[in-house]
Amino acid sequence: MPRYELTYPKEAHNTVKRYNSRASYALKTIHEVINSAQLLHVSFQPEESPFPATLPMLGQMGSFDRPSADPGDVLDLYLHGYVSSRLMNVSRTKSTTANGQDTPAGLPVTIAASFVDGLVLALSPNAHSYNYRSAVLFGYATPVTDVSEKLYAMECITNGVVPDRWRQTRVPPNNAEMQSTSVLKVRIVSGSAKFRVGNTHDDRCDLDEESVLDSVWAGVLPVYTTLGEPIPSAYNRVNPVPAYLEQFRTDFNANSRETALEAAVEPAENKKEDTDAQDG
Amino acid sequence: MPRYELTYPKEAHNTVKRYNSRASYALKTIHEVINSAQLLHVSFQPEESPFPATLPMLGQMGSFDRPSADPGDVLDLYLHGYVSSRLMNVSRTKSTTANGQDTPAGLPVTIAASFVDGLVLALSPNAHSYNYRSAVLFGYATPVTDVSEKLYAMECITNGVVPDRWRQTRVPPNNAEMQSTSVLKVRIVSGSAKFRVGNTHDDRCDLDEESVLDSVWAGVLPVYTTLGEPIPSAYNRVNPVPAYLEQFRTDFNANSRETALEAAVEPAENKKEDTDAQDG
Repeated sequence: MPRYELTYPKEAHNTVKRYNSRASYALKTIHEVINSAQLLHVSFQPEESPFPATLPMLGQMGSFDRPSADPGDVLDLYLHGYVSSRLMNVSRTKSTTANGQDTPAGLPVTIAASFVDGLVLALSPNAHSYNYRSAVLFGYATPVTDVSEKLYAMECITNGVVPDRWRQTRVPPNNAEMQSTSVLKVRIVSGSAKFRVGNTHDDRCDLDEESVLDSVWAGVLPVYTTLGEPIPSAYNRVNPVPAYLEQFRTDFNANSRETALEAAVEPAENKKEDTDAQDG
Repeated sequence: MPRYELTYPKEAHNTVKRYNSRASYALKTIHEVINSAQLLHVSFQPEESPFPATLPMLGQMGSFDRPSADPGDVLDLYLHGYVSSRLMNVSRTKSTTANGQDTPAGLPVTIAASFVDGLVLALSPNAHSYNYRSAVLFGYATPVTDVSEKLYAMECITNGVVPDRWRQTRVPPNNAEMQSTSVLKVRIVSGSAKFRVGNTHDDRCDLDEESVLDSVWAGVLPVYTTLGEPIPSAYNRVNPVPAYLEQFRTDFNANSRETALEAAVEPAENKKEDTDAQDG
């Protein structure tokens, strides 16, 4: 773990413009949001379209050269996707043709992950907000061709879905599986995270209005992800559900709920302020 | 409701390239995924950066000209965002300078929403997958300047968070609130949705291997969003929690859980097939 907290540089494309007291550029904070997201939205600009392409993909931060690296270290993002063939083809082309001194190899991609932790229901619609955690990373994507690195990335991504799942399955992948699996490595150049925590913050004009206070419910509905009872496949023979899976489910559900409940607690520094509306 | 199901045209940028049996171009399907998402990821390509910008925003489909329109009708997307100032400024510029005959007014944006409904844990890592619903829309964004349309959009978006919430709060917004609120209207030109349902689909080689079947748990962990017990604000005076909020919470939680459980049921058409691996 680094002695000092590492932060991404603030540049035009990653500087959070609004409510920047809630922004973070710390690698650890950003990487933890990305790693805990079940799906990432990966965007890139195709040459032939006016619209960015956005694909839902799985990903995990990692370091093939130093697998013991901490989430706060400089890491790469490994991506494995459902609809990855377009992205894979474009980044393969880009990485072989980008020979200019100043043009980094790889396809420029933007990766976004967001969690809603609570619906913040205020007295006025304008003071409504969400408690949330959101992170974005910017980097250059290239296909992973080295077999050992691809295996490392596949293991990271599988264990990102369920901790320790990789070694609980039929591994290693055979040659056909290795051939058919594409993994992208994103060399990260910058990123940022944004958070909102606390309860409702209404305008003074509404807080002073008896009729408003007497008629509108104000507060937070916590929002969290739950993992339900495991549903075995028709061909499953392993009964009961293994302990590592039940432990994961218990930990996930407790952590998920606790995060949402903690997010609704007003931070000490906000309590001093009389009003802090328009934070939606 | 249209007599026939409307679909978005298949064009280069929205055609799902892989596993297209799970793709849908039906307006109703796509709009329902977008409307049920608590957060959307909105991407656009800034001129000064190699990376698309991606912002988490709130949005709802609607029709200001025909408010009674069905989710399966041609609709606009109204967006209201946490970090919207960059996007608002860019789209304002674009909409006033785009005067060419063939250049639609507005900023080209891509809107993505994804739900994970289940972790599909197969015998081999390669056959692992997610049950999911994902939608993407492409369109041209312009700021809403008409006051009535802005009010309509704000009401749609607020009621998208909690049904009927708008009229349960202090409305209408005052002049300062109307001035400080920015709403974008996205004229949609195309879109697509993608789904995965069912339980695990493993390769024949693993299904024939006794040692694999005897050692690996195969099945689905359902994933769903839960709304927790309401946490009143320090200044809330409305007790108990109003019925419309409790009803919303009950309905949301039941529907959310049911969607995940139903997604894990193997569709009839898949049961015929012996194997259908590599669907991750």
